[in-house]
Amino acid sequence: MAVTGRIDGVPSEVWNEEVLAPQFGYEAEALLPHYVSIEKVLLLEYRRMGLVDPQGAAALAGRLDGLTPELIRADPRDNMSDIFFAMERHVARGATAPFAAWHVDRSRNDFQACGQLLSCRENIRALAADLVALGRTAAARAAELPDSPMPGYTHAQAAQTITPAFYLSALSEETLGAARRLLATYDEIDRSPLGAGSMAGQELPWDRERMATLLGFREPQAHALVSVASRSWALAVASELSNFAVALSRFTTDLMTWSGAGFGFVDFPDALAGISAAMPQKRNFPVLERIRGRCSHVVGCATQLAFAQHGTPYANSVEVSKEAGQHLRAQFAALRSALRLAHTTLATATFRTDRMREACEGDFLGAFTLANLLTLEAGVPWRTAQVIAGAYVRAAIAGGLTAATPDGPLLAAIAEEHGHRVPEPAELLSRSFDSDRAVRIKHSAGSTHPDAVRVMLAAQEDGYRELAGQWRLRDEAARVAAARVDALLAAVDTAAGDTAGETATVTP
Amino acid sequence: MAVTGRIDGVPSEVWNEEVLAPQFGYEAEALLPHYVSIEKVLLLEYRRMGLVDPQGAAALAGRLDGLTPELIRADPRDNMSDIFFAMERHVARGATAPFAAWHVDRSRNDFQACGQLLSCRENIRALAADLVALGRTAAARAAELPDSPMPGYTHAQAAQTITPAFYLSALSEETLGAARRLLATYDEIDRSPLGAGSMAGQELPWDRERMATLLGFREPQAHALVSVASRSWALAVASELSNFAVALSRFTTDLMTWSGAGFGFVDFPDALAGISAAMPQKRNFPVLERIRGRCSHVVGCATQLAFAQHGTPYANSVEVSKEAGQHLRAQFAALRSALRLAHTTLATATFRTDRMREACEGDFLGAFTLANLLTLEAGVPWRTAQVIAGAYVRAAIAGGLTAATPDGPLLAAIAEEHGHRVPEPAELLSRSFDSDRAVRIKHSAGSTHPDAVRVMLAAQEDGYRELAGQWRLRDEAARVAAARVDALLAAVDTAAGDTAGETATVTP
Amino acid sequence: MAVTGRIDGVPSEVWNEEVLAPQFGYEAEALLPHYVSIEKVLLLEYRRMGLVDPQGAAALAGRLDGLTPELIRADPRDNMSDIFFAMERHVARGATAPFAAWHVDRSRNDFQACGQLLSCRENIRALAADLVALGRTAAARAAELPDSPMPGYTHAQAAQTITPAFYLSALSEETLGAARRLLATYDEIDRSPLGAGSMAGQELPWDRERMATLLGFREPQAHALVSVASRSWALAVASELSNFAVALSRFTTDLMTWSGAGFGFVDFPDALAGISAAMPQKRNFPVLERIRGRCSHVVGCATQLAFAQHGTPYANSVEVSKEAGQHLRAQFAALRSALRLAHTTLATATFRTDRMREACEGDFLGAFTLANLLTLEAGVPWRTAQVIAGAYVRAAIAGGLTAATPDGPLLAAIAEEHGHRVPEPAELLSRSFDSDRAVRIKHSAGSTHPDAVRVMLAAQEDGYRELAGQWRLRDEAARVAAARVDALLAAVDTAAGDTAGETATVTP
Amino acid sequence: MAVTGRIDGVPSEVWNEEVLAPQFGYEAEALLPHYVSIEKVLLLEYRRMGLVDPQGAAALAGRLDGLTPELIRADPRDNMSDIFFAMERHVARGATAPFAAWHVDRSRNDFQACGQLLSCRENIRALAADLVALGRTAAARAAELPDSPMPGYTHAQAAQTITPAFYLSALSEETLGAARRLLATYDEIDRSPLGAGSMAGQELPWDRERMATLLGFREPQAHALVSVASRSWALAVASELSNFAVALSRFTTDLMTWSGAGFGFVDFPDALAGISAAMPQKRNFPVLERIRGRCSHVVGCATQLAFAQHGTPYANSVEVSKEAGQHLRAQFAALRSALRLAHTTLATATFRTDRMREACEGDFLGAFTLANLLTLEAGVPWRTAQVIAGAYVRAAIAGGLTAATPDGPLLAAIAEEHGHRVPEPAELLSRSFDSDRAVRIKHSAGSTHPDAVRVMLAAQEDGYRELAGQWRLRDEAARVAAARVDALLAAVDTAAGDTAGETATVTP
Repeated sequence: MAVTGRIDGVPSEVWNEEVLAPQFGYEAEALLPHYVSIEKVLLLEYRRMGLVDPQGAAALAGRLDGLTPELIRADPRDNMSDIFFAMERHVARGATAPFAAWHVDRSRNDFQACGQLLSCRENIRALAADLVALGRTAAARAAELPDSPMPGYTHAQAAQTITPAFYLSALSEETLGAARRLLATYDEIDRSPLGAGSMAGQELPWDRERMATLLGFREPQAHALVSVASRSWALAVASELSNFAVALSRFTTDLMTWSGAGFGFVDFPDALAGISAAMPQKRNFPVLERIRGRCSHVVGCATQLAFAQHGTPYANSVEVSKEAGQHLRAQFAALRSALRLAHTTLATATFRTDRMREACEGDFLGAFTLANLLTLEAGVPWRTAQVIAGAYVRAAIAGGLTAATPDGPLLAAIAEEHGHRVPEPAELLSRSFDSDRAVRIKHSAGSTHPDAVRVMLAAQEDGYRELAGQWRLRDEAARVAAARVDALLAAVDTAAGDTAGETATVTP
Repeated sequence: MAVTGRIDGVPSEVWNEEVLAPQFGYEAEALLPHYVSIEKVLLLEYRRMGLVDPQGAAALAGRLDGLTPELIRADPRDNMSDIFFAMERHVARGATAPFAAWHVDRSRNDFQACGQLLSCRENIRALAADLVALGRTAAARAAELPDSPMPGYTHAQAAQTITPAFYLSALSEETLGAARRLLATYDEIDRSPLGAGSMAGQELPWDRERMATLLGFREPQAHALVSVASRSWALAVASELSNFAVALSRFTTDLMTWSGAGFGFVDFPDALAGISAAMPQKRNFPVLERIRGRCSHVVGCATQLAFAQHGTPYANSVEVSKEAGQHLRAQFAALRSALRLAHTTLATATFRTDRMREACEGDFLGAFTLANLLTLEAGVPWRTAQVIAGAYVRAAIAGGLTAATPDGPLLAAIAEEHGHRVPEPAELLSRSFDSDRAVRIKHSAGSTHPDAVRVMLAAQEDGYRELAGQWRLRDEAARVAAARVDALLAAVDTAAGDTAGETATVTP
Repeated sequence: MAVTGRIDGVPSEVWNEEVLAPQFGYEAEALLPHYVSIEKVLLLEYRRMGLVDPQGAAALAGRLDGLTPELIRADPRDNMSDIFFAMERHVARGATAPFAAWHVDRSRNDFQACGQLLSCRENIRALAADLVALGRTAAARAAELPDSPMPGYTHAQAAQTITPAFYLSALSEETLGAARRLLATYDEIDRSPLGAGSMAGQELPWDRERMATLLGFREPQAHALVSVASRSWALAVASELSNFAVALSRFTTDLMTWSGAGFGFVDFPDALAGISAAMPQKRNFPVLERIRGRCSHVVGCATQLAFAQHGTPYANSVEVSKEAGQHLRAQFAALRSALRLAHTTLATATFRTDRMREACEGDFLGAFTLANLLTLEAGVPWRTAQVIAGAYVRAAIAGGLTAATPDGPLLAAIAEEHGHRVPEPAELLSRSFDSDRAVRIKHSAGSTHPDAVRVMLAAQEDGYRELAGQWRLRDEAARVAAARVDALLAAVDTAAGDTAGETATVTP
Repeated sequence: MAVTGRIDGVPSEVWNEEVLAPQFGYEAEALLPHYVSIEKVLLLEYRRMGLVDPQGAAALAGRLDGLTPELIRADPRDNMSDIFFAMERHVARGATAPFAAWHVDRSRNDFQACGQLLSCRENIRALAADLVALGRTAAARAAELPDSPMPGYTHAQAAQTITPAFYLSALSEETLGAARRLLATYDEIDRSPLGAGSMAGQELPWDRERMATLLGFREPQAHALVSVASRSWALAVASELSNFAVALSRFTTDLMTWSGAGFGFVDFPDALAGISAAMPQKRNFPVLERIRGRCSHVVGCATQLAFAQHGTPYANSVEVSKEAGQHLRAQFAALRSALRLAHTTLATATFRTDRMREACEGDFLGAFTLANLLTLEAGVPWRTAQVIAGAYVRAAIAGGLTAATPDGPLLAAIAEEHGHRVPEPAELLSRSFDSDRAVRIKHSAGSTHPDAVRVMLAAQEDGYRELAGQWRLRDEAARVAAARVDALLAAVDTAAGDTAGETATVTP
């Protein structure tokens, strides 16, 4: 039996091989369970509208329940290699024929949009868990090293004394922020396209609100055309993933630098190390290159998604929903892989506090403090204090001195040249250039001071707890909705399923 | 007098021409007012911390107040072509020398981050007003044509009967959604970096909370390193702009098609038309190509911003803040231009309802309804109803019939071939293929039915009103904060400005 | 037995699952034959350098010959899930142990770079054949319709009368140009990295020239560091693919428009048509959306490749060679798919000359000719002639006239208003607005005149013939080189294989 | 006087402000000289075709000659803010009215395409000179340090001993390759669109070959539609710029690393150094961030150009020629700026050979040589030699030994564990780990050996000389063509300018 009276023939071999069969394969694997859920909800609506009797509905529910990827396959002749027709055929071949009105007033357009969105929601929930896990690991590792001095860098030069705790809590902060945005985005896109029909809405009195609820959505998408034509929700999600990937790539860049020759601040276990096939001394960490490469891919997927939608008609199209849509799936996979690698890497890293301290002491990180003290204690105007401190550093380097070997008279002499007397210059220098003191000299909220970091970590943990709870609610909501549908279907041939308020007579 | 004791010499000519001078020019034009605001807040803090007496503070406030772009200029020798040093120099050259501690414990890093964010906030507010204006215009134009049938298209083929109201309300819906997200993004990024110092926080007891409030921020950014190293806020904003540009480009594509040869559904006034220099019959609408081209640029700017940040160290850097940052500015300009053009275009468009109706009647848009009726009224199973309706359309086209010339016996015959009897086939056909009836046959929420569209438009107007109110609050907040700073400064040498709670003694 | 003495342990599960095993799988499938070719060439060099006796070489050659993907597998414990070690292990487990010096002075870096380049060359050759096939089909379809008028459009408005031949020969011209550039790019990148070692070159007297020849390369890559660090060749190839994809997307856009509602100029067979599951009248051509979507992906892959390389160290890295490299493979697949679909689409398209002619006659495409005639025959200055012709079109439209119903007096009157007398205005109009005449009125080289198009098509066919010949030479060169390697290996234990000139003694 | 009779009114304010006026400004500045050149060539053709007498031609030539940006301005009323009309008006307002047939049979489409291409050619020639200059500077700096050992890195770990000469000659090699491709691209796109008319060719017997020659093009673009619709030439150019920018960004990344804390291999003069406003010890090199940021922008421009063309009709459009076209201009500017900065940076860099040597000696870069020697001199199978060398390095690190303190007995003991006897192990170690010896131990073509680098530098200099000569030819060709046009125009009213072969009578 044909599925259409409009055209003859079957999809050509090229068309089937390049497009239809691979598309079918993807949908059978990733979307089928969602498609079945939607069919069940539609069935409940047909029952509510009185278009099927209890027995017919129960029979069809049973047939839907057993629908697995193994039972259907792309076949140009039988189902035009289209999963929707394959599902229809499969159901129709059950012991009981479907009721006549099955699929009346229905369209693939909102059906597919709905399936894609359900799948996206599922992917987001899984990703959110990864994000929270990464953030918590960063915070946990941070908590291990609150006092240990390490150099902070700007423009590739040592800038100020910070701590691993301070640095890692910034990673946690970015991760927490990303996880929060993702939750907001989830809630915003959580609107059911079902009932939009092909584009213009539907002719029968479908209850879009009820269908949305039964599928676990927050509400229906208000506009029928938006429901099927728009994939702004995909762009919104892709942006969040991309933006976090950028941040992650930046932290990864630092880990590359710090685990590389020239620093050696961070080490990773042999199980994550690569060797050279030729250079026996090498111990590489290609895992970091993999993370950064995948982050780049995540950004690229968002770019591709946006450009693949750009300039297309505002209409339901495979160009937007399927060709462009593939980039969102690729993006989820790439970011989840990067997160898994980053998590392992972070969890097993060793921070070489000895080398970090040594690097702190090999530079003049306290020069800012020195300038502060010159102003606050010796009354030197700030800009002049900067000049004096800079000149001191320059002279010290030229003279082979280090931060650990302060030269009070040199400082005094330089200050004098600029017209200022500095009492106890040696004491000023040693107060300025002590690494442990440097960690605690910052006092502002959010600073590298161990107490300030502790406050941030505590607030972050509150954030993670809150987020984890919110995601649990959403996981739960999805489960509860599915269970309710099954319960309603189970009750469909009993009085319970057919409450007065839930059936209606239909006159188109 | 030098600004540093660390290096000699002045910026090279190449360095100055290619980088420093243009950067100075941009900052003088776009950031200077924000920099002055920040300086005023810092001054209030110095006063609060007791580092300056009332007279010193008042003198400096006066000097800051008069700081305009005309008074400073890039000069490699005098200020290293750096606006921060140029401002410092300008202030220092006033009648009264600045107090010694001026700028003590300060950094350009959080200063610049703060100025960039203040500028971005200002740009967002302006853009938000444009968005609301565009959306409201779309909604207003929609309200004009609630009943007039036009073809809706999918895959470039006529699909279902819709109305201009339905279509334009989708543009309004997307615009409203974008404006809402932008508000959420604004609130999320509305956190002051000030007080983060160079990267590690500050040594004096700066009140970051108070500074944030005085600058009109919702709160301080929690983490000092995030404050200066992160431009995730730029990515968040750029994504919103890009995602809306994609949607706008899609509506623009439809307008291109519909104002083009082959359709003629939409016309624009001569004042927006282009002519050919050679082909006298041409009347072009290149404005649509400009809008779409600028939307593409908006998407490209987001791409560039993300990739320019990708793989950089997580640190304060000019690569991220300035080189990458330029793409955000270019993006605001491009989107605002596109919005302005789109607004004019939409506001002055003429919808040719005659041609739309003609197009509706030239196709078989009611075939879906016909299939529905075959099922619901003649009991034909849905898939068979589809086959019959498709075969009818095919035969009608082959026979030169149109939707306006229904052939009842043909339908009956085809149905019979498929084993079904259709009573009153001609009546079924004319009910199916009537364009005005088609507009009202959809009943679901969000459908093209005039009542459904009216409901959506009302809800949208509520949304715009709410949004406009929210943005007014934020505009107001920025104004109020600035006024409060000026009032505090004005009061600084009187008792009022020096309340007990607002001064403190400083011991680093 | 370990493969390294530098580290302990085996790759972690995460590392293996996310990275090593999938990488191994890809290389086993796509690169193994190339790796085996390289190993054979290396073996010939070891023999030439006297580091292995004939029997040892013959034994190893045999072992290499049987190496198939089925015989090796990723195993963290046995081969660190690295295909190079897996190959080494497989060979080592043969009946005869490899000679001691096997793999001495060797590196994976140039080995992998060489394998990747060999694979890329193979992909280019296959793609080039697709390109030539598409171009020839475009030219062949062009030749079918040299005289038939169709409207040419600019800015979505009908501009001038052209022919399908003219339009399709432009597609052929772009395709030919792309195929020519691809050949030049092929020749340019056709340089062997082998012998570059890890990065700095090799210690033994490897003959890089000879190895390059044996692998069918044009010459060795001059610089060792460039050989392993650079993937500029990947960028060069990716650009060519991307640039052609842009052109193809533009022609596809026209086909979408012309096969869509409003035009109907082009039709495709049912075997390429999509139906609607709901709207029985629909006959869609989603294949065009697929082609355009894939073209977008091709562009996106080039973008990703470039950005994934950007900002990495100029060194051998997995970030560049493998993470970024994947985008080139994805790109080949996407473009080859798009080409296959485009080829089928073009080959089976039906051009509706009746509808094209009708569209020509429904517009005033001859207005340009009219203005020309007003100037050349009636002496009206050109700009005024434009104004008169434009005013005539405007008045004609307002008066309900078409190009087929010329109104001589109207033209005369308008001309008069502008101070000019037009003799025989009706004759001028009918000469201007005749569609068949319009096709032949253009005379310049490269114009739409059937003779001009014929000249272009002939030149294109010369181009395709030349290109096809060039590609046959390169296919042949690859085959010949491989055969020569096998012949040399077969002769290795006989006098023939050990000519004086081809062995050498080694002293590092 | 109106320029059209088709529409009334003038461009709206928004349209003028956002689009027309800025476009006019850009064209007046960048394209006007090219437009004037084209007008002169057209004038010669009108003369050749006998459509103007010598006096008329001479008068118009004079009027064109004086056309400067200052004389025209965007005016919605007078010239529709279109530069073409402004030029026409300017000429028309001369003392002598233009001849009646001036601009007959002409179009803006090929005119603009031609002007854009002339401008692009000019930009390429300027860029090519920059590229050659950069490459030669890299080569010159390379020649300074042929023997000095420095570590080469892979995966951020020290890999092998190389030299600055070797590294910098790789930059030169990439630059030379890019400059060569650019020349090929220049020649390929060097085809005149002029004479294609609006899209379909022209009606009068224009001599496209002659016009191309007079404009200094290699030949006419064969196909009229390709001439005006295609901007594949822009994509080809943009790709070349983008691909080189990627390479340049990678070298810049290494300079960032090597001039940064942890290395200190490279230093730059104070005139390129940045200071901190707060941290007196800082000496930053933000110039490197600027270069990399601009390289990223160059890549982004190519991305934007491609995506802005993607999916547009294959037709003349402002979306492609102007909106997309702007990205090419931005790209030239960004790359030229990056090249200028890179050139200065490279020319003034100081290479700290002492620190490089120290870094070489602090690692075990000779382990590869050690493994080679174990195989070649002690007969240890290569994989085992790798294991032994790796185990030695590991044990040496654990025991606090360096490459400079070889422990022969340790090596012997480890070899013994693996079943091998190593005679004179201490001697093997010292031969392996000597930095100066390491530079000369590589022998293959293209290696780091000073002799091999010298050979490469010599070949590169041949390449630069050849390229510089080629570009001189092209600069010269442009100048000669312009001079010939002026000479022909000067001779137009004398017998010399009106040779028999160069005039013709026109019958359309």
